[in-house]
Amino acid sequence: MQGQQQQQAYDRGITIFSPDGRLYQVEYAREAVKRGTASIGVRARDGVALLVDKRIRSPLMEQSSVEKLHKADDHVGVASAGHVADARRLIDFARRDAQVNRLRYEEPIGVEALTKDVTDHIQQFTQIGGARPFGVALLIGGLENGEPRLYETDPSGTPYEWKAIAIGSERSDIQAYLEDHYDEDQTIDEAVALALRALASVHDEGLTPKRIAAATVDAESEQYIQLTDDEVEEYLVDADVLADEE
Amino acid sequence: MQGQQQQQAYDRGITIFSPDGRLYQVEYAREAVKRGTASIGVRARDGVALLVDKRIRSPLMEQSSVEKLHKADDHVGVASAGHVADARRLIDFARRDAQVNRLRYEEPIGVEALTKDVTDHIQQFTQIGGARPFGVALLIGGLENGEPRLYETDPSGTPYEWKAIAIGSERSDIQAYLEDHYDEDQTIDEAVALALRALASVHDEGLTPKRIAAATVDAESEQYIQLTDDEVEEYLVDADVLADEE
Amino acid sequence: MQGQQQQQAYDRGITIFSPDGRLYQVEYAREAVKRGTASIGVRARDGVALLVDKRIRSPLMEQSSVEKLHKADDHVGVASAGHVADARRLIDFARRDAQVNRLRYEEPIGVEALTKDVTDHIQQFTQIGGARPFGVALLIGGLENGEPRLYETDPSGTPYEWKAIAIGSERSDIQAYLEDHYDEDQTIDEAVALALRALASVHDEGLTPKRIAAATVDAESEQYIQLTDDEVEEYLVDADVLADEE
Amino acid sequence: MQGQQQQQAYDRGITIFSPDGRLYQVEYAREAVKRGTASIGVRARDGVALLVDKRIRSPLMEQSSVEKLHKADDHVGVASAGHVADARRLIDFARRDAQVNRLRYEEPIGVEALTKDVTDHIQQFTQIGGARPFGVALLIGGLENGEPRLYETDPSGTPYEWKAIAIGSERSDIQAYLEDHYDEDQTIDEAVALALRALASVHDEGLTPKRIAAATVDAESEQYIQLTDDEVEEYLVDADVLADEE
Amino acid sequence: MQGQQQQQAYDRGITIFSPDGRLYQVEYAREAVKRGTASIGVRARDGVALLVDKRIRSPLMEQSSVEKLHKADDHVGVASAGHVADARRLIDFARRDAQVNRLRYEEPIGVEALTKDVTDHIQQFTQIGGARPFGVALLIGGLENGEPRLYETDPSGTPYEWKAIAIGSERSDIQAYLEDHYDEDQTIDEAVALALRALASVHDEGLTPKRIAAATVDAESEQYIQLTDDEVEEYLVDADVLADEE
Amino acid sequence: MQGQQQQQAYDRGITIFSPDGRLYQVEYAREAVKRGTASIGVRARDGVALLVDKRIRSPLMEQSSVEKLHKADDHVGVASAGHVADARRLIDFARRDAQVNRLRYEEPIGVEALTKDVTDHIQQFTQIGGARPFGVALLIGGLENGEPRLYETDPSGTPYEWKAIAIGSERSDIQAYLEDHYDEDQTIDEAVALALRALASVHDEGLTPKRIAAATVDAESEQYIQLTDDEVEEYLVDADVLADEE
Amino acid sequence: MQGQQQQQAYDRGITIFSPDGRLYQVEYAREAVKRGTASIGVRARDGVALLVDKRIRSPLMEQSSVEKLHKADDHVGVASAGHVADARRLIDFARRDAQVNRLRYEEPIGVEALTKDVTDHIQQFTQIGGARPFGVALLIGGLENGEPRLYETDPSGTPYEWKAIAIGSERSDIQAYLEDHYDEDQTIDEAVALALRALASVHDEGLTPKRIAAATVDAESEQYIQLTDDEVEEYLVDADVLADEE
Repeated sequence: MQGQQQQQAYDRGITIFSPDGRLYQVEYAREAVKRGTASIGVRARDGVALLVDKRIRSPLMEQSSVEKLHKADDHVGVASAGHVADARRLIDFARRDAQVNRLRYEEPIGVEALTKDVTDHIQQFTQIGGARPFGVALLIGGLENGEPRLYETDPSGTPYEWKAIAIGSERSDIQAYLEDHYDEDQTIDEAVALALRALASVHDEGLTPKRIAAATVDAESEQYIQLTDDEVEEYLVDADVLADEE
Repeated sequence: MQGQQQQQAYDRGITIFSPDGRLYQVEYAREAVKRGTASIGVRARDGVALLVDKRIRSPLMEQSSVEKLHKADDHVGVASAGHVADARRLIDFARRDAQVNRLRYEEPIGVEALTKDVTDHIQQFTQIGGARPFGVALLIGGLENGEPRLYETDPSGTPYEWKAIAIGSERSDIQAYLEDHYDEDQTIDEAVALALRALASVHDEGLTPKRIAAATVDAESEQYIQLTDDEVEEYLVDADVLADEE
Repeated sequence: MQGQQQQQAYDRGITIFSPDGRLYQVEYAREAVKRGTASIGVRARDGVALLVDKRIRSPLMEQSSVEKLHKADDHVGVASAGHVADARRLIDFARRDAQVNRLRYEEPIGVEALTKDVTDHIQQFTQIGGARPFGVALLIGGLENGEPRLYETDPSGTPYEWKAIAIGSERSDIQAYLEDHYDEDQTIDEAVALALRALASVHDEGLTPKRIAAATVDAESEQYIQLTDDEVEEYLVDADVLADEE
Repeated sequence: MQGQQQQQAYDRGITIFSPDGRLYQVEYAREAVKRGTASIGVRARDGVALLVDKRIRSPLMEQSSVEKLHKADDHVGVASAGHVADARRLIDFARRDAQVNRLRYEEPIGVEALTKDVTDHIQQFTQIGGARPFGVALLIGGLENGEPRLYETDPSGTPYEWKAIAIGSERSDIQAYLEDHYDEDQTIDEAVALALRALASVHDEGLTPKRIAAATVDAESEQYIQLTDDEVEEYLVDADVLADEE
Repeated sequence: MQGQQQQQAYDRGITIFSPDGRLYQVEYAREAVKRGTASIGVRARDGVALLVDKRIRSPLMEQSSVEKLHKADDHVGVASAGHVADARRLIDFARRDAQVNRLRYEEPIGVEALTKDVTDHIQQFTQIGGARPFGVALLIGGLENGEPRLYETDPSGTPYEWKAIAIGSERSDIQAYLEDHYDEDQTIDEAVALALRALASVHDEGLTPKRIAAATVDAESEQYIQLTDDEVEEYLVDADVLADEE
Repeated sequence: MQGQQQQQAYDRGITIFSPDGRLYQVEYAREAVKRGTASIGVRARDGVALLVDKRIRSPLMEQSSVEKLHKADDHVGVASAGHVADARRLIDFARRDAQVNRLRYEEPIGVEALTKDVTDHIQQFTQIGGARPFGVALLIGGLENGEPRLYETDPSGTPYEWKAIAIGSERSDIQAYLEDHYDEDQTIDEAVALALRALASVHDEGLTPKRIAAATVDAESEQYIQLTDDEVEEYLVDADVLADEE
Repeated sequence: MQGQQQQQAYDRGITIFSPDGRLYQVEYAREAVKRGTASIGVRARDGVALLVDKRIRSPLMEQSSVEKLHKADDHVGVASAGHVADARRLIDFARRDAQVNRLRYEEPIGVEALTKDVTDHIQQFTQIGGARPFGVALLIGGLENGEPRLYETDPSGTPYEWKAIAIGSERSDIQAYLEDHYDEDQTIDEAVALALRALASVHDEGLTPKRIAAATVDAESEQYIQLTDDEVEEYLVDADVLADEE
């Protein structure tokens, strides 16, 4: 109670620190990320796999319109968790950033550089008043000089590079699964399967192709490619995590 | 009580998250949508049907002036629920956006692109201080490359695509009716009838042509066409939901 | 008490919704309208009649200077209820809007278009912070392509079209009278008389010419014409609602 | 007590309405007007008379420097009640407005037009945040097309035209005197005398020339002319309201 | 207590009036003036005398650096009471204003015009938010067309003209002394002496030259001339108010 | 409790001092620095060593992406403690500052000048409202005219020069170790070793190469050089503080 | 308690006066000055001496980097007490001001003019909202037309000239010592010694050269010259206040 009152005294905006040096609004934005369904990224030796879980509101909704997986440039994909509208804004920022790079330097933007431009943009929303932080985390995966790279952006504007990472709902359990089963030498096919099994590990009822979207950027094509529903289903069958149709 | 006090501590503006990562002002704007009478959109195999319910304040009011159904471009219609004045502003935005597209690219704007421009505009009103969110949801229906498309925008600025959707008052019951009776292969005539029956399902007293406005964008004409009162009445008779005149 | 405390938590500005989706400041602005004396508009088959009641503060005040009835353009009149100074600002806006239309398109502005430009202006004062809503409602009556039209603007920025409408003090009772006695086929003379009788229905002591101002826009002249005191008196005598001189 | 708490919840700024549609800050500004000594305007058949009462702080103060009576243009005078510094600002506005009119149209500005420009300026300070309303009322008197006109501006920005009017301290009692004794056919000399007697009616001890300033705009000269102390004394003697020298 | 709570509800800024029409922040700024040591101005038949009392913080402080007496232009001096830094800003404003006048019109600025420019500047700090009022009063004395003039500016931005005036600490007692002993026909020498005796009337221990600064603008030279310490001492001796050296 | 309430009254923003002259928000930002893992700088006779400790969130995170050690220019390195995203922004500032210096003066920027430009930037975020202070401290080490220099910037914007310094978690204990063992004549190799032993002094379990990053700027090469994992491990072995692999 | 509550009601910003006319935020900024270690200025017949005490945080800190003594121009030095970062900003301002003067007028800026430019800058931070006052006092000493001058600036923006002055911690006791021992005819060497003895008077344990920095501007060289540690030690020995080395 005392602790809660203490917290409430310092959590009404991004322009104030709490006495113990915390920015509560940024921490609350992280909670907004946890409210979103999970997204998973896995780096393989020959590419990056991104996989997202979609919340199903009604059978009449077109699942394909639930935007959690995006192409930022030919060679970079982005998966999000948290506020969809906030994610859309950051992805617009990323796309413009990637295009400007192509125009200026006539080459694709590096995944790290792209990530850091995005996180710098996010940081400003945690220091200057008059706005709120972005309530979304992104996984930015792609190829940089032929090497697969996978980054996370969080609401504080900090970039992290990962071998495999889960964000959103039940992040901890999925991450634990990834830590137990990750293998740096896996192929991109195995990476997609790992991501699916990791997500399935927190869904005892199995997964349906409809609620899953997945994409890869492989070292050969250097292209962002979204999997078809049939391909997703095949992976689910192979991983033995296919749910009965809802 | 405790929960309500908790909520009240974080619901005075869009620039603060609650400790559990919610934006209460956006959620309250969704309540403003529910205060409006219902609007329904149904996608058929050959077009999109939009139908709106109008609140009758006085027999001396011209029902035609209750603006819930709008033409955004030749091939796109919009139905709204919630604050009428807010809807008008968004529809002005949509119309200008569609016109700019015609001028720049000499072709009609895609329904998805138009929707996303509108939702990006809405999102800004949920992140930058000094204003309130839009208290309105829109159904944007039309043809894109000959294909019927139906989108929803909500006060958070998230776009969703639907086969059939209800917004506004008694949304849940109408949506349940739509889920039970929707058929992807229906014609646009059947879509109008479905929407009427869905609305009637929450009005035991039946419906009058005066309180209903309906429009279609069909694949043949590719034109937004608003139904006449007589046409509406015919549908009501056919669907056996015609009320006694008030 | 509980309800009032609840309300007071959300009624201090236009940039916050209440938990049930209301904008209290806009609702309070509607109360400001009700504090003003009544104004009435009646559409006839051959024109529009506007009639206003003026509060008498002192016999030394020039009643003609109580501004409730205005000419917006040759063919459009405006009657207001609520804050006089706010009304003046909106009417300035309407006049400039009408003049710009004449300059650009070399034709008189439509009554509907004029109304919607005004309501769009009003809406901005209900969404962007740093100001209050307009505490005034307007009746905008005139001719559009030879047809009489009568619109209302309210503090939320919503436009409505009416056959006959009362705003301001005792609006409900006057509106009830209008609903009971309105006839679409009436002439403009009968419309003025109806408005007078409707106003008199809430003033048992009768009406004096001094407290009344009336104007018409008829289909023949297509001109806004304000009635003289003698003409008003004649109507009062005819309608048998002339009060003893105060 | 309850009522006062209610009031206090809505009276801290001009950007919020109270639940009953009032703008308390504007009403409090009217109180600021009442704190000022009285000013009186009387319209005669051949001109306008303005008269002001000056508070005497010390015999060493030059009464002539207490600014309550101003020339706005050759043919227009202004008397104020309330905050002197606020009045000065509005009169600067009025003077510039009158000069601009002469430059643009090569003719003197109308008294009504001048008044309405001033009230429009005042209104902005009652709707847009970041400032307070003007704590002053003005009486604007002069000639328009040879006709005497007398206007009042109040802190809400509403213009009123009067035959005779008192503002400031003890306004009600003075106004009652004016209502009892006003005669539309009086000459400007009689108007000055009426104003003096009206002011004296609330000062049993009589009036001294020092505390009075008076000015006229007569139809013949069409000039604003301030009375000398001797002329004022003569009027006081004639009206039999001359006080013993303080 | 009740009264104090009432007051505290309305005294946090210049943009709100209290229910009885007062601007507490301006009144508090007047208290800041009273916290300053006294300054006195006396108008003689042949010039103006300004005299200031300086607070002595330490014998090591250079009393000459305590800025309470300033030359605004060749023919105008200014004495202040209240916040020294605020006074400096206003005097900078006055000096620039006087210089601009010389450049534009090639003649010295009038004392009245200069005063009113300064008070207009002060008024803005009492109406527009985001700043506080000036916590200083000024006495502006000089020659205008050969005539001595003496003005006061207060924190509300109101200008007053005086024959003799005291501002700052113990203003009332000194003013009473001035009222008892002022003579319009006195010479400027007598005016300096009167000011000194008036100040001494509230300092039983007498005055030292160090704590006094005095200046005159006489009709002959039309120059602002500051008295030397010796001259001040001579006046003190003549007036028999010389204190023992501290 | 009393003290805490006192503190809470003045700690909500950088624009207010507490009664005892403190800026709590700046002090809380210092707490944010202490929440970060430690960073250490040691000046040797022939260069500067920087060493940082990295928090390990998951074995799948790429430790190299935890940004605590940066190259600001060829001859200057920066180690940070506190908010990573804030540090990134300051380092961007420092890099641009260094580049501008090279462009303008065609020579490398001095370490002191660079530090002071950064601290000036930080200071503005402690005085002007609308933002929060930077929640990060930096160690800026490099060569200036061949001489090794080591500076600290703190959240108040004050620059300090050090021989050896620790910032972040357990700063006091590490600093005590440095004070006990620092030798001005040590070589840069010894400086790296000292930093490692100082960090190990607060980690009884020893250190792993993965959690350590280190860099030097030596007087010979005048280049910022980051140590490889193998080099770090060698130092750890030599200092006998190598932990068992986690 | 009552008094404290009273105070707390008016001390949250520079834009509000307290009922007794005080600006608490400026007074609290003066407390920030007192939190700093002492600085002393002494004017001699042939120059000015500045002396500062430095707080020792760690033996590893370079005392020379504790910035309390600055050269503003060739002939002007500045000593500060209070917030170091705030002092740096004011000194940047002073340096630019001095340089601009040299460029414009081709001569060194006067010490008084420089001081007043700085205090005008400080004053703005006490009147316009959105920032806090500067939490620092400065001693500005130098030569003006060959004459030694010594000024103080305080957080209110008031300039004072002094013969000898102490600011910062234990200001009162040091000032008392100065008042007892100051001699206007002393040489600059004696002035340095006086400042040292005055500082030593509040440090029974004596002083070390490390914690002292001193500078002079003498009439012969007209140059700001900082004393070496050896010179400081010599003075300490001469004044018999040398402490045992810490």
